[in-house]
Amino acid sequence: MVKIAVDAMGGDNAPQVIVEGIELARQDFPNVEFILYGKEPEIKKYISDLTNITIVHTEEKINSDDEPVKAVRRKKQASMILAAQAVKNGEADAVLSAGNTGALLAAGLFVVGRINNVERPGLMSTLPVFKGDLDGFDFIDMGANADNKPEHLLTYAVLGTFYAKNVRKVVNPRVGLLNNGTEATKGSELTKTAHELLSESKDINFVGNVEARDLFNGVADVVVTDGFTGNAVLKTMEGTGLAMMSILKDSIKSGGTKSKLGALLLKDSLLQLKEKMDYSNHGGAVLFGLKGPVVKCHGSADAKAVSAAIRQINDMQETAVINELTTFFEK
Amino acid sequence: MVKIAVDAMGGDNAPQVIVEGIELARQDFPNVEFILYGKEPEIKKYISDLTNITIVHTEEKINSDDEPVKAVRRKKQASMILAAQAVKNGEADAVLSAGNTGALLAAGLFVVGRINNVERPGLMSTLPVFKGDLDGFDFIDMGANADNKPEHLLTYAVLGTFYAKNVRKVVNPRVGLLNNGTEATKGSELTKTAHELLSESKDINFVGNVEARDLFNGVADVVVTDGFTGNAVLKTMEGTGLAMMSILKDSIKSGGTKSKLGALLLKDSLLQLKEKMDYSNHGGAVLFGLKGPVVKCHGSADAKAVSAAIRQINDMQETAVINELTTFFEK
Repeated sequence: MVKIAVDAMGGDNAPQVIVEGIELARQDFPNVEFILYGKEPEIKKYISDLTNITIVHTEEKINSDDEPVKAVRRKKQASMILAAQAVKNGEADAVLSAGNTGALLAAGLFVVGRINNVERPGLMSTLPVFKGDLDGFDFIDMGANADNKPEHLLTYAVLGTFYAKNVRKVVNPRVGLLNNGTEATKGSELTKTAHELLSESKDINFVGNVEARDLFNGVADVVVTDGFTGNAVLKTMEGTGLAMMSILKDSIKSGGTKSKLGALLLKDSLLQLKEKMDYSNHGGAVLFGLKGPVVKCHGSADAKAVSAAIRQINDMQETAVINELTTFFEK
Repeated sequence: MVKIAVDAMGGDNAPQVIVEGIELARQDFPNVEFILYGKEPEIKKYISDLTNITIVHTEEKINSDDEPVKAVRRKKQASMILAAQAVKNGEADAVLSAGNTGALLAAGLFVVGRINNVERPGLMSTLPVFKGDLDGFDFIDMGANADNKPEHLLTYAVLGTFYAKNVRKVVNPRVGLLNNGTEATKGSELTKTAHELLSESKDINFVGNVEARDLFNGVADVVVTDGFTGNAVLKTMEGTGLAMMSILKDSIKSGGTKSKLGALLLKDSLLQLKEKMDYSNHGGAVLFGLKGPVVKCHGSADAKAVSAAIRQINDMQETAVINELTTFFEK
């Protein structure tokens, strides 16, 4: 059995979409047990039957605007913290939350705890690739750390390699270093030193520098960067995608009947575009490098995204990726 | 008169589009004189008449794959270097090139030279805003420097403020600091210290941290960041835009007659989208903080983009933005 501790109260539409996501996933994964933390009466409204589900009632929750570290310290009975405690105490294998990202990172670090010798866990998602047969690349660190040392980027490369290999079944994953040019001599002090470390490492398949422009083209299976840059890149992708969709919508609206008919005929293509840009079908963002999977869904995640995150946790447990990482980093 | 030294051989389609750009611009700006550096016979093919145009023949040019600093040192007779020399010698006011970006940065720093007390000039473009009446924001540094100190970001804020005020006629431009969260306490060591410096400065209108997700929404008129992050953000915008357009195209192609008819009806909207995303109508990227305007057009710039860069240089000269900056930094 895989046991997932779920923060049922985190996210814009909690607990409804969280529970609906579980309802979606439980059919495919009868081997997964859920412990839901949150307001029992609210949670129960959306559950069909309680097979494999335990509800632990708590009144407290961490809000999206709470200061993360303070919230983790003070709100000991919050649904998110109880979920993290469950992993620490061995009552569950993994944490799932759509709540305050900063608080979940803090709960991951301070409650679940790091794998030995992993100084800085990184936040990682599988982002889409739009060329060839590749379905995505693992991008780490997307913002767990604002300042990174070159050694952290080597750790990210190892973490990403194990994930791509185990969970996404990529053979000999190609690791790229996000940089401001592809030549080996390019970059900041950080990326130049990281380039040396990555080149020398025998534990990864380093393919050199990659540029942000080419990420969607499948230049690498794992792309490592410092958390500040990773965060900026991810948010730029989101902002650019949203801006383009909104310009197109406005333009269709103001274009009269011809335009609207065109949009109607193109509906499938536009939906396909939206679907391809949406990376939540690969699961949530993993705070990776911890003793158990801690997975963050977007605050506005729908039931499908929550269900994808459950599948992701199940895959991580079944492929024992964290056990393998623990062995690797302890050797 | 405004005198522009033009690297006629830089860019994918030089000298044709460079000269065509000049042909477009000269009608609107009869006060601009052009000195074109490059292969005279090739350049002459595209010129209608030589009013206000001087051609200085040279066989040498810097290629897009030349190592920048070496090329600037060794290719003393290259069209780009001669253009930069013309500004240094007072024969021209500004340099325009669509050639090797790194080489142009090096030529700007080592040949044209920095404004006194500007330690690190920054690469700046006006990028589009899609909300409200704002037409853009000035983004600096987009990659002139791979490592920045907090003081550099304050310099960028001043440079951007003068540009927005003089060239874009923005009243009291709002300056934002690109960061991984909007709260003042967020960020890396660099951005936290920069936040303090920007907050304390009386020379700018600092509005606090801004996130990459919101850049297109007009959160600030000037956005400052270190050159590594700025470069990554710019390339992510380009990569995301291109990826979305290509998914949409593929989807239309594979969608059969219905889809193609839809695309035909939506043609205006799709063109409008492309037009809005194209920021070259604001001009090129300025290496800003030098003794004269050094403006870089995209390697694949068309005549319209070259013409926009000429208008931009004309505006910079007419509003005396560099003189004002020189006075400011020398005080």
